[in-house]
Amino acid sequence: MSRPTTDGPRVGIWLIGARGGVAVTSIAGLIAQQQGLADGTGLVSTLPPFANLPLVEWNNLVVGGHDIRQAPLIDELERLHTQSRVLSPALVESCREELAKIESRIRPGTLWNVGTRIKQLAEPAAAGRSSDSGINNAKSASDVVAAVQADLAAFKEDNALEQVVVINLASTEVSPEDTDAWPATWDELKISLPTADCPLPASSLYAIAALDAGMPYVNFTPSLGSALPALDDLAHQRGTCHAGRDGKTGETLMKSVLAPMFAARNLEVMSWVGHNIFGNLDGKVLDDPANKQSKLSSKGNLLGDILGYAPQSHISIEHIESLGDWKTAWDHIHFRGFLNTPMTLQFTWQGCDSLLAAPLVLDLARFTLLARERGETGTLDFLASFFKSPLGEGDQAFAAQYERLLAWVNSYSE
Amino acid sequence: MSRPTTDGPRVGIWLIGARGGVAVTSIAGLIAQQQGLADGTGLVSTLPPFANLPLVEWNNLVVGGHDIRQAPLIDELERLHTQSRVLSPALVESCREELAKIESRIRPGTLWNVGTRIKQLAEPAAAGRSSDSGINNAKSASDVVAAVQADLAAFKEDNALEQVVVINLASTEVSPEDTDAWPATWDELKISLPTADCPLPASSLYAIAALDAGMPYVNFTPSLGSALPALDDLAHQRGTCHAGRDGKTGETLMKSVLAPMFAARNLEVMSWVGHNIFGNLDGKVLDDPANKQSKLSSKGNLLGDILGYAPQSHISIEHIESLGDWKTAWDHIHFRGFLNTPMTLQFTWQGCDSLLAAPLVLDLARFTLLARERGETGTLDFLASFFKSPLGEGDQAFAAQYERLLAWVNSYSE
Amino acid sequence: MSRPTTDGPRVGIWLIGARGGVAVTSIAGLIAQQQGLADGTGLVSTLPPFANLPLVEWNNLVVGGHDIRQAPLIDELERLHTQSRVLSPALVESCREELAKIESRIRPGTLWNVGTRIKQLAEPAAAGRSSDSGINNAKSASDVVAAVQADLAAFKEDNALEQVVVINLASTEVSPEDTDAWPATWDELKISLPTADCPLPASSLYAIAALDAGMPYVNFTPSLGSALPALDDLAHQRGTCHAGRDGKTGETLMKSVLAPMFAARNLEVMSWVGHNIFGNLDGKVLDDPANKQSKLSSKGNLLGDILGYAPQSHISIEHIESLGDWKTAWDHIHFRGFLNTPMTLQFTWQGCDSLLAAPLVLDLARFTLLARERGETGTLDFLASFFKSPLGEGDQAFAAQYERLLAWVNSYSE
Amino acid sequence: MSRPTTDGPRVGIWLIGARGGVAVTSIAGLIAQQQGLADGTGLVSTLPPFANLPLVEWNNLVVGGHDIRQAPLIDELERLHTQSRVLSPALVESCREELAKIESRIRPGTLWNVGTRIKQLAEPAAAGRSSDSGINNAKSASDVVAAVQADLAAFKEDNALEQVVVINLASTEVSPEDTDAWPATWDELKISLPTADCPLPASSLYAIAALDAGMPYVNFTPSLGSALPALDDLAHQRGTCHAGRDGKTGETLMKSVLAPMFAARNLEVMSWVGHNIFGNLDGKVLDDPANKQSKLSSKGNLLGDILGYAPQSHISIEHIESLGDWKTAWDHIHFRGFLNTPMTLQFTWQGCDSLLAAPLVLDLARFTLLARERGETGTLDFLASFFKSPLGEGDQAFAAQYERLLAWVNSYSE
Ligand SMILES: NC(=O)c1ccc[n+]([C@@H]2O[C@H](COP(=O)([O-])OP(=O)(O)OC[C@H]3O[C@@H](n4cnc5c(N)ncnc54)[C@H](O)[C@@H]3O)[C@@H](O)[C@H]2O)c1
Ligand SMILES: NC(=O)c1ccc[n+]([C@@H]2O[C@H](COP(=O)([O-])OP(=O)(O)OC[C@H]3O[C@@H](n4cnc5c(N)ncnc54)[C@H](O)[C@@H]3O)[C@@H](O)[C@H]2O)c1
Ligand SMILES: NC(=O)c1ccc[n+]([C@@H]2O[C@H](COP(=O)([O-])OP(=O)(O)OC[C@H]3O[C@@H](n4cnc5c(N)ncnc54)[C@H](O)[C@@H]3O)[C@@H](O)[C@H]2O)c1
Ligand SMILES: NC(=O)c1ccc[n+]([C@@H]2O[C@H](COP(=O)([O-])OP(=O)(O)OC[C@H]3O[C@@H](n4cnc5c(N)ncnc54)[C@H](O)[C@@H]3O)[C@@H](O)[C@H]2O)c1
Ligand code: NA
Ligand code: NA
Repeated sequence: MSRPTTDGPRVGIWLIGARGGVAVTSIAGLIAQQQGLADGTGLVSTLPPFANLPLVEWNNLVVGGHDIRQAPLIDELERLHTQSRVLSPALVESCREELAKIESRIRPGTLWNVGTRIKQLAEPAAAGRSSDSGINNAKSASDVVAAVQADLAAFKEDNALEQVVVINLASTEVSPEDTDAWPATWDELKISLPTADCPLPASSLYAIAALDAGMPYVNFTPSLGSALPALDDLAHQRGTCHAGRDGKTGETLMKSVLAPMFAARNLEVMSWVGHNIFGNLDGKVLDDPANKQSKLSSKGNLLGDILGYAPQSHISIEHIESLGDWKTAWDHIHFRGFLNTPMTLQFTWQGCDSLLAAPLVLDLARFTLLARERGETGTLDFLASFFKSPLGEGDQAFAAQYERLLAWVNSYSE
Repeated sequence: MSRPTTDGPRVGIWLIGARGGVAVTSIAGLIAQQQGLADGTGLVSTLPPFANLPLVEWNNLVVGGHDIRQAPLIDELERLHTQSRVLSPALVESCREELAKIESRIRPGTLWNVGTRIKQLAEPAAAGRSSDSGINNAKSASDVVAAVQADLAAFKEDNALEQVVVINLASTEVSPEDTDAWPATWDELKISLPTADCPLPASSLYAIAALDAGMPYVNFTPSLGSALPALDDLAHQRGTCHAGRDGKTGETLMKSVLAPMFAARNLEVMSWVGHNIFGNLDGKVLDDPANKQSKLSSKGNLLGDILGYAPQSHISIEHIESLGDWKTAWDHIHFRGFLNTPMTLQFTWQGCDSLLAAPLVLDLARFTLLARERGETGTLDFLASFFKSPLGEGDQAFAAQYERLLAWVNSYSE
Repeated sequence: MSRPTTDGPRVGIWLIGARGGVAVTSIAGLIAQQQGLADGTGLVSTLPPFANLPLVEWNNLVVGGHDIRQAPLIDELERLHTQSRVLSPALVESCREELAKIESRIRPGTLWNVGTRIKQLAEPAAAGRSSDSGINNAKSASDVVAAVQADLAAFKEDNALEQVVVINLASTEVSPEDTDAWPATWDELKISLPTADCPLPASSLYAIAALDAGMPYVNFTPSLGSALPALDDLAHQRGTCHAGRDGKTGETLMKSVLAPMFAARNLEVMSWVGHNIFGNLDGKVLDDPANKQSKLSSKGNLLGDILGYAPQSHISIEHIESLGDWKTAWDHIHFRGFLNTPMTLQFTWQGCDSLLAAPLVLDLARFTLLARERGETGTLDFLASFFKSPLGEGDQAFAAQYERLLAWVNSYSE
Repeated sequence: MSRPTTDGPRVGIWLIGARGGVAVTSIAGLIAQQQGLADGTGLVSTLPPFANLPLVEWNNLVVGGHDIRQAPLIDELERLHTQSRVLSPALVESCREELAKIESRIRPGTLWNVGTRIKQLAEPAAAGRSSDSGINNAKSASDVVAAVQADLAAFKEDNALEQVVVINLASTEVSPEDTDAWPATWDELKISLPTADCPLPASSLYAIAALDAGMPYVNFTPSLGSALPALDDLAHQRGTCHAGRDGKTGETLMKSVLAPMFAARNLEVMSWVGHNIFGNLDGKVLDDPANKQSKLSSKGNLLGDILGYAPQSHISIEHIESLGDWKTAWDHIHFRGFLNTPMTLQFTWQGCDSLLAAPLVLDLARFTLLARERGETGTLDFLASFFKSPLGEGDQAFAAQYERLLAWVNSYSE
């Protein structure tokens, strides 16, 4: 059932935030898989249960993207190697040539409603770049969407791509308030687009651009993205699909694995404290209380869902320069057992953030492209195991989420 | 469907090792549930999915058992309170009267093939007690089985019990070697019983006594118990059922919860080191290398089963007096992620061992009695989530094991 | 050289915050020492090097104090026993009678400039109590000082005490700003006292009352207390002494023990993150960012002092109800070794806060009373090992601080 | 007072176990210091208090040594880089040329009484190498000593060295028994040397060779080395000095830093459990129970010395392949505070073993050479802070040991 490597149509992965840590690691990982330098460890889609799915082959994938900074891709890769002591020197060298090609496919992104912290990241020069598709001179949200769509169309055409999946890997935005009060249908929401004060954040404009063009969209970040009923409506109208949000790679993954055990054993979680420290650019953005709030709400929902009650819970995220990409999380879980006995579980997670995220980005690209090909529309609920705040229905226990992924695979072979 | 509390037939729980930490805590827990002093936390069988099962009511349960020591039950309870700082003074007081009654139902146990460490626990006096059912003068394994059966029959009759479940909570025996070479049918195995050098350990003789009398049997310890094809054969012949072995309460529970995550994410576990320290009597017995070996093999199997390969694994168990019943486990998991990146998860578990075990003992009694009532025979595979080395078929991932328990419940309501 | 137990003059310990956790534990500890129920563990002053110092005997100590709440002392003791599972039931019982006597010696305290969080603790009724020495109707800081001094004088006279040491154990106040700009001499500072807007906080007014009356004063809290040049001036003028501030009982103790090792081995501390969680009343007050700031500055100074450079440092303190008095601190120290190699030390400290503090309170009372008797004036620098932010001169390494205490002892025997 | 870099006499460092992890890292570190590629972090002798000592300059040091294996030095360096992810690629390259030179100065070592585990490390070829100084055909311990002395003399002459310090960095030997019964003077002990069954282990023969030639000797390992009264006697007779044993780099360092705190605060350590895991060659040798015993006794003494009583203590060392040179130690300290309250401190140490050891090796070389130059004889007690089981007098608290080092420096400037 699997396609030969060299045949098959070429498809595109378009990364929003293409110069960031997760994006560059995803690109390096893709190159490594293409060149036979990686053995698939960390990738879900290479596990046995997925062996017979007609997933896109590594060699048929082409990368492009948007970013608001101009730092060369290779610099980020070298920074990861030098500062965080990951990736072999050989791998870094092998990526050099291919990264240069991808450079030419990265276009200026939009700063529409991203908040001041992210604006500070953007180089002043960015505004007036000759290569600009007009995105930085946009007078309305519609202009932004149009510029993004122009970039996507050019990417597709230039590279003769059959399909393009758009994946948001940009810095975590400040979350707009009162989104519950926003219109729930696309027809109503789109009215605000042509205005200069459209409240939609950048992540949602990128999502609109993708979905409106019939492309599948994945939001790997806590930003709003496609998490609005009106955007789901748009996806359905255009016959495309989307998934998100916020990749589940560390502490929250652990929560979704451990909390079901406490529930199944009738052990009462009295408090769950999580303390995260790390030192990359993502952490610097999250160091701003406004941006951090988006991440905290994304991380905070699942305990109540799984346990059926809300224990006292505290999560902190601190930017500690020396750690680089090494996210260290300490969790302290205080629980009550039989005959009122308090007990404690503590864990320390020392994971390299980008290297946990990157394989999931590649998996999500492959799964989402296949779902799109098969005509699935709206939220892809079977991808819940990949996200901290999954769009769609379903419980948050990791094992149950993974069962749903396997069930989706089985539905294919039937 | 549930029975009124005061009605219904009375049933018995017969504890092997009735004066030990887990046994006494189970008894105290049962009294607390009977007197309305406990809120069910820590018990699985009181969770919502089990609400409509016709499980035996707390008030209909009567306790008796065997032990080789004569230390009063109340002493063990007070020791737990004073040394390990668990159980409220009020609860200890409430148990005093009931414990005295149960005292009178505890009979001398057998030391047949238990190994020297356990023999040292037994009071010399024990040998010639007038109350002796002959168990200490047994000349053959058949004599032991007969003495045990006499005790069980008297317990059943004296207390007008409809059924009795026998639960092994005795110290971990030294494991006999070469059990694979032993006969696989009951008819062949039973030939060795009338001899003076029958190699079966005490735990298996207790199991034979129970199963042969048609009673259900649960092995909460790593000892051999009913884990022989010939004993499963016996259970089938007598139309009864059994489950085991080794209650899953701490580090191994965590392994069966965490290892599936590594598998599902294709993260390669390179090594898994577990270091357990605690200071109760169980720990003192396990401090003997021969006895410890039984525990280690029981703990050691599941990683390979779940992961599909065997990472380097090390488990140590040390008796540290000052910790009393507080089992502290430190686990260090070294895993390899995408692009060859080594990462680390560590956890520290601080649980009170007897209070983790006791509710499971009560749950197992209830579930097993119900299965017996419904006529299930042989190993009760749906109870796998309770054991480190589950008898019967099925994978070792905790979530999957718990699903099997729920499926069993559902089969009842159909 | 040591005095017989029954002879010797009686001396007083006056506790500000007498109904709080540390105060009540200190009182219970004193009673236990008086009644022979405690073996001296945790007390510094009972160690061999101090055996020949003429320290006040336990039986010669009488306790009184101020508080702004009216909760009975015995309630706090029972809360510690029940919620935090410390202190034996026997000890609680033994304290009952003596606590009742001490009750009668607790007087209403002042809320002058304590901040809103602490004001909320005070019972409304407190304002108009008949027993009031006028402290709640004070129109100026002078009135407050006079009321406090009246209480101290009555305590001394009623109990025929030779001397009284005043120890601040009250909730952490919000720190006043710009204290550097305040007058450095007592004569200048006292001008502000008779005014209604005197900016001195309650802790400093208590300190003034004590020092002005020639009594020694100890500040066990991060509040300002006597940490003003003008108050040191006052102490010198009145021939008395003082010490502080903020008892060093947990994470900061560990810092002052570990940081010198990194310095002595030339290992560069790149970052030091500390995360503290606990659930007592102290924690509730510290949960207010304004009050927390006082604690954080107190904890934050020593790394730079010891290392000679300031690594990135982060300290958080969170109130987690379920932990009660059990302060759990996780510290993550990231350091750089030879040839640029990053390494990590993590520790978890699980200490019962009041039981770490109480013996130090008793030690400080004894040492300070002896210093006063010998005529030492101003800051007692030899007590630095007891404090997070020691008043006076000297480096912050714990071992060096302890050496200074021993040197002081030796100076006595010369 | 310091000497100009280019002038001054050249001196030698002779490493026993020159091809091992610590040795090669020490060599790489020396090269890095010589070439200005390292900033001195991790070295004690570059700290300010030592700035004016006339220590040998890096550029004046020449390296040679013995080993029983023939693995090229560069291989070990590359293994450290690749497997343990330490040392920059640039540094590895910079060492290549210099390592080749040092290769030529490494001579075959002796296997006299090293135990079977170490014998297995030696290549069979080693026995009959043409370059052999006769060491492998030695018929008696005297022959071995003579062969070692021939190698040392040739090294000194060939490189025109003024002095040579011999440092033992070889694998941990099995400890001989009953050494207490061995003769305490050199004149008596040396009688056994000319025999074929002389019970002295290799480490002591190397020590004898060095001391007898008037060279200073340092034992960085737990092996016996110079820790015999008769060898101290020899050192005194020849006017030379020695120090040891077992470099203090991780868990034991922590113990000597933390235990004094418990003592100074009168907190009773009830139990101290330490669990060490790591995966290098040293660990493989220590995996043999006989060799491990030497390490355990070396690690085990100091708690009793510092605390004045011996808490229950357990230390385990396990070889976990995947960790490479990353020694991870988990320590669990259970202590009793005021009013009988049990509390816990846990720490996890993640250090790269060779990179903790190497700078101390260089420091010890420098300090020992200076002491020799100044005519100090016998054990160098002021070096105690560097060792787990320091030879000579003095207490084991780290801060006190470091004070003795500083006092020694001060004695120079007087
Ligand atoms: N394990 C993980 O690393 C992980 C897990 C879950 C979610 N995430 C999320 O993934 C995102 C990326 O993480 P990262 O570590 O790569 O962060 P990063 O800061 O390294 O990269 C983000 C990139 O986005 C770019 N960017 C910001 N705003 C943009 C915009 N409006 N348009 C286009 N580009 C924009 C930035 O310039 C930067 O290059 C973050 O939102 C993070 O929270 C990461
Ligand atoms: N969390 C847990 O505590 C836990 C989890 C899994 C398994 N287990 C197992 O449960 C068993 C009981 O643990 P515990 O902590 O109560 O131990 P324990 O030592 O306190 O109690 C064991 C009791 O068994 C008795 N005994 C020993 N041999 C006997 C025999 N042949 N016949 C009758 N009685 C005998 C002893 O006298 C003792 O009273 C152990 O095998 C232990 O490994 C306990
Ligand atoms: N290990 C420790 O517990 C430790 C260590 C160092 C410092 N401290 C400090 O010791 C103090 C006491 O800690 P605690 O745990 O007992 O807190 P607590 O909240 O239990 O007790 C504080 C008491 O002070 C009283 N109070 C508040 N303001 C007052 C005022 N103006 N006058 C008189 N009484 C007043 C409160 O009513 C309360 O009874 C805190 O400042 C804390 O930060 C404690
Ligand atoms: N932090 C640390 O690494 C540390 C701390 C304290 C002590 N130590 C001790 O230092 C020693 C070296 O540690 P390592 O990690 O380099 O070990 P290693 O195994 O990498 O190196 C030991 C070397 O000694 C050689 N050797 C063995 N027996 C010999 C003999 N008789 N003569 C000559 N050479 C011999 C081996 O061939 C090997 O090359 C060990 O004894 C270790 O316990 C190390
Ligand atoms: Na990231
Ligand atoms: Na080593």
